[in-house]
Amino acid sequence: MVKQERAQVTRGTIVSGAAAVFGRRGYGLASIADIAAEAGVTKGALYFHFPSKDELARAVITEQHRRTMVAAAEVVEQGLPGLETVVRLSAVLAHQLLTDPVVQAGIRLTTDVSMFDPPVTEPYEDWLRTTEALFRQAAEEGDLRPDLDPGMLASVVVPAYTGVQLVSETVARRADLLERLRDLWTVLLPGIVPPGELERLRRLPDLIH
Amino acid sequence: MVKQERAQVTRGTIVSGAAAVFGRRGYGLASIADIAAEAGVTKGALYFHFPSKDELARAVITEQHRRTMVAAAEVVEQGLPGLETVVRLSAVLAHQLLTDPVVQAGIRLTTDVSMFDPPVTEPYEDWLRTTEALFRQAAEEGDLRPDLDPGMLASVVVPAYTGVQLVSETVARRADLLERLRDLWTVLLPGIVPPGELERLRRLPDLIH
Repeated sequence: MVKQERAQVTRGTIVSGAAAVFGRRGYGLASIADIAAEAGVTKGALYFHFPSKDELARAVITEQHRRTMVAAAEVVEQGLPGLETVVRLSAVLAHQLLTDPVVQAGIRLTTDVSMFDPPVTEPYEDWLRTTEALFRQAAEEGDLRPDLDPGMLASVVVPAYTGVQLVSETVARRADLLERLRDLWTVLLPGIVPPGELERLRRLPDLIH
Repeated sequence: MVKQERAQVTRGTIVSGAAAVFGRRGYGLASIADIAAEAGVTKGALYFHFPSKDELARAVITEQHRRTMVAAAEVVEQGLPGLETVVRLSAVLAHQLLTDPVVQAGIRLTTDVSMFDPPVTEPYEDWLRTTEALFRQAAEEGDLRPDLDPGMLASVVVPAYTGVQLVSETVARRADLLERLRDLWTVLLPGIVPPGELERLRRLPDLIH
């Protein structure tokens, strides 16, 4: 049991080290030697836990997605209106992107399209499902234009968010992420909510700070 | 002169080969040897024209951006309304992404954030300027909500498009790109145009096919 716990700790250390190196260099330029050095383990120990760079990268994405989903669940469980919940979730992910190196690396790896065969699409599909369910709730609450399909809306909003955080990383090392996210919602909201509800809901982007 | 022309042809061949390899493998995993083999030149000839992988990647981005801007200029010069022009430009880039390996590789490299120091931001800034100018024109034409700032709108729409094409590449190898792009505009339009103009403009996404 103690041995198993120690193995768990070592795995966690390696995943953190891998996140740091993938986050700095991207998948292609990250080397196993760099990751072992960063994690303070031997290459042998690293290979014992993760036989390939591909598996290391998938482990970082899995851990990132777990952390993001834990934080997301805390928001969803508050039982707030659907639309407010989606806006708050986008802010939660933004804060993780600003502060957590594992989340930074995981999201970066997820958008490193070419690296994985098969591509990693589970996190995207999870977000799509969650967002669609919340938009469906928003529709029942009267906060969605009646002609708007919640599934189609989710399949636009999730990629739009992906692009906003990617451009913010590229041009400003994410310094403007929260502002860009407020702008995204400011532009989207009048197209999402029924005209008569806009006045009531137009301050939703201010939740992001 | 003949010698200079031959050098130009060789450069073009190398850039096409580099685009093919970067497009398949991404920046990090692409090797100079693969690119030389793909282009049918010796590694010596390749290094003569491009002393580093970084310079090769920048050359692919430059050529992609040139091709995209040439195609964009053809649309802009038609003198159509601003909002219609932006929608048509988004379709032009989508068609290049579906058919031109140099454009596929250039856009991929541009979103490979970590690879470049300093990062490549000129194409993004060009798009931002062009889009902002067209939204400004749209505002003068009465096609923008009066409370919407054209610069802020451009800084949302360009990243949103970036995300849509990236997610389409990741989850569907771009098979659904045109449909996703129509959906993006369908969601955005009611938030962009004055409520009274929506009926007249709501078919704009149908221009994308």
